[in-house]
Formats: sequence, C-alpha cells, structure tokens
Amino acid sequence: MASHVRIGIAGLGTVGAGVLKIIKAHGDLLEARSGAHLVVTAVSGRDRTKDRGVSLDGVKWYDDARDLADDPDVDIVLELIGGSNGVARELCEKSLAKGKPVVTANKALLAEHGNALARLAEENNAPLAYEAAVAGGIPIIKALREGLAGNAISRVYGILNGTCNYILTEMEETGGEFAAILKDAQDLGYAEADPSFDIDGVDAAHKLAILSSVAYGTPVDFSNIYIEGIREVSAADIASAREFGYRIRLLGVARRTEKGIEQRVHPCMVRRDTTIAHVNGVFNAVVVDGDFVSETSYVGRGAGEGPTASAVVADIIDIAQGRHTPTFGIPVARMTPIPTVPIAEHIGCYYVRLTVHDKPGVIADVSAVFRDENISIESLLQRGRASGEAVSVILVTHEAKEDALVRALGKIENFTHSVAKPRMIRIASL
Amino acid sequence: MASHVRIGIAGLGTVGAGVLKIIKAHGDLLEARSGAHLVVTAVSGRDRTKDRGVSLDGVKWYDDARDLADDPDVDIVLELIGGSNGVARELCEKSLAKGKPVVTANKALLAEHGNALARLAEENNAPLAYEAAVAGGIPIIKALREGLAGNAISRVYGILNGTCNYILTEMEETGGEFAAILKDAQDLGYAEADPSFDIDGVDAAHKLAILSSVAYGTPVDFSNIYIEGIREVSAADIASAREFGYRIRLLGVARRTEKGIEQRVHPCMVRRDTTIAHVNGVFNAVVVDGDFVSETSYVGRGAGEGPTASAVVADIIDIAQGRHTPTFGIPVARMTPIPTVPIAEHIGCYYVRLTVHDKPGVIADVSAVFRDENISIESLLQRGRASGEAVSVILVTHEAKEDALVRALGKIENFTHSVAKPRMIRIASL
Repeated sequence: MASHVRIGIAGLGTVGAGVLKIIKAHGDLLEARSGAHLVVTAVSGRDRTKDRGVSLDGVKWYDDARDLADDPDVDIVLELIGGSNGVARELCEKSLAKGKPVVTANKALLAEHGNALARLAEENNAPLAYEAAVAGGIPIIKALREGLAGNAISRVYGILNGTCNYILTEMEETGGEFAAILKDAQDLGYAEADPSFDIDGVDAAHKLAILSSVAYGTPVDFSNIYIEGIREVSAADIASAREFGYRIRLLGVARRTEKGIEQRVHPCMVRRDTTIAHVNGVFNAVVVDGDFVSETSYVGRGAGEGPTASAVVADIIDIAQGRHTPTFGIPVARMTPIPTVPIAEHIGCYYVRLTVHDKPGVIADVSAVFRDENISIESLLQRGRASGEAVSVILVTHEAKEDALVRALGKIENFTHSVAKPRMIRIASL
Repeated sequence: MASHVRIGIAGLGTVGAGVLKIIKAHGDLLEARSGAHLVVTAVSGRDRTKDRGVSLDGVKWYDDARDLADDPDVDIVLELIGGSNGVARELCEKSLAKGKPVVTANKALLAEHGNALARLAEENNAPLAYEAAVAGGIPIIKALREGLAGNAISRVYGILNGTCNYILTEMEETGGEFAAILKDAQDLGYAEADPSFDIDGVDAAHKLAILSSVAYGTPVDFSNIYIEGIREVSAADIASAREFGYRIRLLGVARRTEKGIEQRVHPCMVRRDTTIAHVNGVFNAVVVDGDFVSETSYVGRGAGEGPTASAVVADIIDIAQGRHTPTFGIPVARMTPIPTVPIAEHIGCYYVRLTVHDKPGVIADVSAVFRDENISIESLLQRGRASGEAVSVILVTHEAKEDALVRALGKIENFTHSVAKPRMIRIASL
C-alpha cells in the first residue's frame, strides 16, 4: 500500500468516534506499526453537527454512506453502521465489488450474509476484516484464525454478550431478580432501551456463528443455532447455582461432535473454579480447545468505544501492512458445510428446578418420571417444608439426552401438583 | 510463496517432534489455512536413530544444523535447538542473511541477540517469527503486536514460567516446602534436573524482555531486568498470603512509568479475586493494559510438545501466507530505547515477614524503623506467642519506595532480637 492509507468511516456512533480518537491520539505509533500514515479522508454519519469530541475539519462528508465506496480518496472503508441489511450491507458489497478493503464491526451482517460477503471479498481480492464483530477488544478472531491455525478445533465457547454477563453478575451479587437488574443496567447504559437482541441471546448467537465458521472452516450457519436468552433466569436459580458450586453465565458454545457441530447459546451452570466463572460484569471471554495447543482462554472488554475501536484499528493496520487472510481463515471454495447437531441430541448434565405442592408422593412421582426416561439423578434437594404449599425441588442429573429431559419435564409439568413450569439450566462440562 | 513450502527443522527434541506431528496430522487443514502444501524436506538433530514417533523417510538429514541455511530445498528454517549462542544463533544469522525466513522458539536467543537479529531480518527482508518463544501455545506475540496495535501499552505482565507456577500452586495446595515440591516436579518432568533457569526467574525474564520490546517499541533490554526467583518462598509465606487474601505467583512485569519502563521478575502477592490468581499448575497467563482496549488477558499452556509446536506452525502459516510484520512490531530504525527504572525506585505495597525473639519492645522497635523510613504499615500480625522464642511478625505496608523498604529491612536484620533475614514479597497492584 501507499505510504498514506486513506480511510472512509461510515457510521459515527460510539465505535466510529473511538476510531477517530485512536487515529488522532496515536499518529506516530500507528505509522510505525502500520508502515503508513493513516488519514481519515471521508465520513458519513446521521448528524453532521453533532460534537463527537474530534474535529472533522477537512474531512469529506457523505450523506449517503454508500458513496464512500466510490470515493477514489478512500483506500479502506470502515462499516460501523450496523444492521444486517440496508445501507451497511450495500456499502460492504459495493466496496468489496470494487476491490476496496472493508473493516466492519457488524456481527449481524456477518452472521447472516458472511458467506456471500466472503465470496465477494475473495473474488475481488479485497480483504474483509471484522475483529471488532466478536468479543470487542479481545483479538479473538486473529487468535483463532491465525494464532491457533495449526490445530483442529474441538470446541470454542464463551461469554459473548457483556449485557447479559453484567445482569447475571449483578443478580448474583445483589440477589435481585432479572427485571429489576435489567432496569438498573438500562439506567447505567449497559443495556439498550429495547434489550431483546442482547438478553434473548441473538447478539451472542451472531458472534458464535462467526467463531464457529472460523474454528471449523464451515460456512456461517446462524439460522441453525439454538438460542435461549436469560429472561427466565431467576434469583432462585442463581442461589441454587451457588449452593451447588456453580455460577450462571450465558454461554455461546460451538462444539465438534461425531455427528456435526453443536451450536447453542443458553444460560449455563459453570463450575466456580473455572476461568470463565470469574469473568464478571461487562467482560467477555472466549475459550478455545485445539488438539495440539489444548485449552487457551481470552478475556477482555466485549464492547464500548475504546475496546471496539481498538479492534477496528488493528484490522486497518493489518490491511495497511498487507497482512491478508481469507475471510473465515480458509478460501471459500474449501469451506465445507458441517451439519448442526439439533439441541434435542445434546448430551449433558442438567439442573432442574420444580415448583410443586408439598404433598406426600411428589418426590416419588418425579423420580419415577426420570427413571422412565432413563435419566439418573445425581442429587435432589427439597427446599422448605410447608405441607400443601408450593415448594422448590432442585435436581441435578447425570449425563442425559436433552430430548429425554424435555419429555420428563413435560410430564412433570402436567402433574396435578405442579405449580409452575419446570425450569431447566444446562450444566457446562468445562 | 510457491504452492509448496519446504521446511527445514533444526532440533528434533520435544518441539521439533511436535511440529512433525502437526504437519503429519493436519496436511489438508494446513494447506487450506496456509495456501500452500507444507513439506518437511530437511532436518538436523542430535541422534539420527532415535524414534520420534514420526517417520523421517525421504527427509534429508544434516549433522550440522547450519547447513539448513544453504539448502536450496528449504524455504523456511525452524530453529528449535535452543541456547542463546552457538549453532542456534549461527543458523538464524546465516538463514536471515540469505533472506530465508526463520521461525524460532528460542527466548534466550531473542532476549540476548534480538536487536541484531531483527536488524538482520529487516535488511534481508526475511521474516523472523518467534510466537513459541513466549508463553508457549498462547498466541500472545500476535495478540500484542497485531491485535492490540491500536493501543499505547501501559503494562504487560504475566505468569511466564510454568515450572514456577506449578511449584507455587503445589506449595499452596499441599502446604509443602519449596525443596520438596521442586523434587516432586523434577520427578514428574515439570522441572529440569538443573532447574535454575526456571526457578531463578531467568527464563521468565527472557520472555519478559521480548514482550516488553513488542509492547513499547524499544530494543530488547534483557540485561537490565531485575530478576528474583522463587527459591526463597516458604510455606509460611504461602500460608500468610492466603490469610491476607492473596496467592503467590512468579510474575514478569513490564510497566511504563513517567521515568521509563519497570522490567522485573519476582514473586508477587496477587489478590485471590484476580484472573491471574486462578491460573494454576503449568499454565501461563499474560495480561496487557492498553489505553483504548483497557485490560485483556490470555491464558494457556506455556510449554510442552503440542502447545509449543502449535505456535511454531502458526508462524509457518503466517510466512506461507505472506503475512509479515517487523520482528518486534515496528521497524528497527523506529525502535527507541527507553530507560529501565531501577527496582530501587519501584513503588508498591509490600508483604514482610520477620522472625524475631519474642521480647518486649520488638514491635515498638520494628515500628520505629518503618516510621523513620516513612513507610506506613497497613497491618501487622504477630504469629504465636512464646516468650523468648522465635516468632513471626507479618507486616503489610502501604505504598512505599523500594529503597526505603530495603533500608528498613537492613536495619531490622541487624536487631539483636532478629533471628533470621527478613523476607519481603512485593504485592501486585493488579
């Protein structure tokens, strides 16, 4: 590349402003590390007049971000708009089609259209970089795609959503219920006004789809990910987790099995002595199991202006240095679809919380259901004792197949003495 | 590069054998990820007849590893011999001088001759890669040099020696003394017959010198690192650490201050609620503080056949893909010496254990010494009570300057009621 690398930024929200700040703060450092002088030559945002804390004097302004792709004074396009379609997607497509490198932080876009974009990037010999799309400031894409490239990966999993981790951590620390803690998180800016993308696990699933593709060399397959969010996690579950030596974390897990790849996002009980159990608040963590390297873990801030912009700038430097890698680590033609194993076939241990009327024979009936489904119970705990009233029965199972467990819970739900829908949380085998 | 990348391996010990195994196990995968067929064409080792679990049929054998540099059928030279001089160094110099890429796992070589080798690599446009030299399987060089390249680094520290971490972890778990645990570690193969390089902190210091150079863009400066090993850590210190809410870890720390860079390797008290305190056994961990990304942490196996070979193969793939980076992240001409801050100027909190005769006035005398050196005591604990006999007095100080603390301990050592040399362990401010 030339001794100047000219950058066009589409989207001047948190991340875009962060990138402007890094480039302003670290001119010399970035020049030493990238071998080029990085200059922002053009931008596109919603509001031209907004104060972003960084001057845009002398920088071209586009009302339509897609025009950045046409600007001959833009060498690299940063897509920091977000959303899996619309302008963000069109800008990326147009830029790549013209052979212009694209850096994006857009996990939804990659999770839904990553395969087509990777093909477009390859056909036009234009890098498509997206370190910021997964786990914010943690350079996990680089680590997985390049740093661990000598390994067959058997599992990649992690805490991929800081909002959920903040809520779960706070629930544990305060004993509060989900709704109240969510409200606090919203007030503090850790959760969006409409939090569903985060708390329903969709955001984590977008990231997992990308990680999975890089880990296994398989096309991105977001639509087959099993997704379960954290809305149903209660203070009672958090308390039980503690009692059994666990913490509850929303995990994204992509695991290679003989049948294919398990791809799932759901709350998990994780043993308190694991690295991941100590990842608190808005931090993210990713753990990768490779056949030669064994387990490596990566922890850092998964969102926010500085961390996300840090990842974007690392991608810019890679491109400026001519360090290119196929989008998902291997050429599109070599990517091989691997079937997603349905969650019904998942095998693991389960935590189950039943709410039943405390009547003689309840435990016997529950036990019989599990026996009939061939599920063996590791421990069982009846909480409280108030004849005729609702009590909690907590169970931990040995390894069982999910469909059997679901059938068992369905039967128990139909008991006359069942007061509430049984709750189940998978126990992570970390 | 060509569609075949021909590899010459110098050194067929643990790491060399591991590389052979990865290349054998993952032919297709490596081809997909490197864009080339990786072939080992030549090797050099000590013993031609030894069974390494991988066939060397059809591979050229050199008795003198330096000849690999001359072999026109070798595109990349792997230096896996070790040692900071002799054949290892000559092979690297000769290969780079001929423009041949070098991959090495040799931290001693880089710590002592890294600057000259980096210059040679640059002059001959030959990559010099060394991911395996620091923290084994953890891709920390890549993370720091590329993944965090948008940040000014303020601190990098970590558990860089698995042998020491294993010993300290075992001391904590069993309550045993250093010498006995070291013996066990030797029997298990976790410590060398001559363990001094590991337990005296030299190996960790080699790695720290490299990390520091990558983090701060300064020439490698191994000779100025303050080094203190773990021989003096006693079961009593481990027990006290627990009591005060700490664990003891051998840390390498490179911290940017206003006066320069602190570069030091020594046992540290780390708070039990930190990520690093949960890194046990032979695992390594590195924590990096960047101004935009804030804190990121990396954990994995720091040694062993698979993890180290994984790092070597990642470097091979980078080279095969043409992904080049200046050796220490920036061109040699841009590297700027930054003075090392002497340990005497270190400011931090200290744990101190005194062994004194239990006589009236001892505590008053000790307190007076600290007062005279302007060191304020956070807590003080006298262990046991046996008039006239030796007892332990444990102190934790507030922030103090190291030279003042050393003076205070010198005075206390000269007390008539001092029974043993005072012990001091720095408390990490993580």
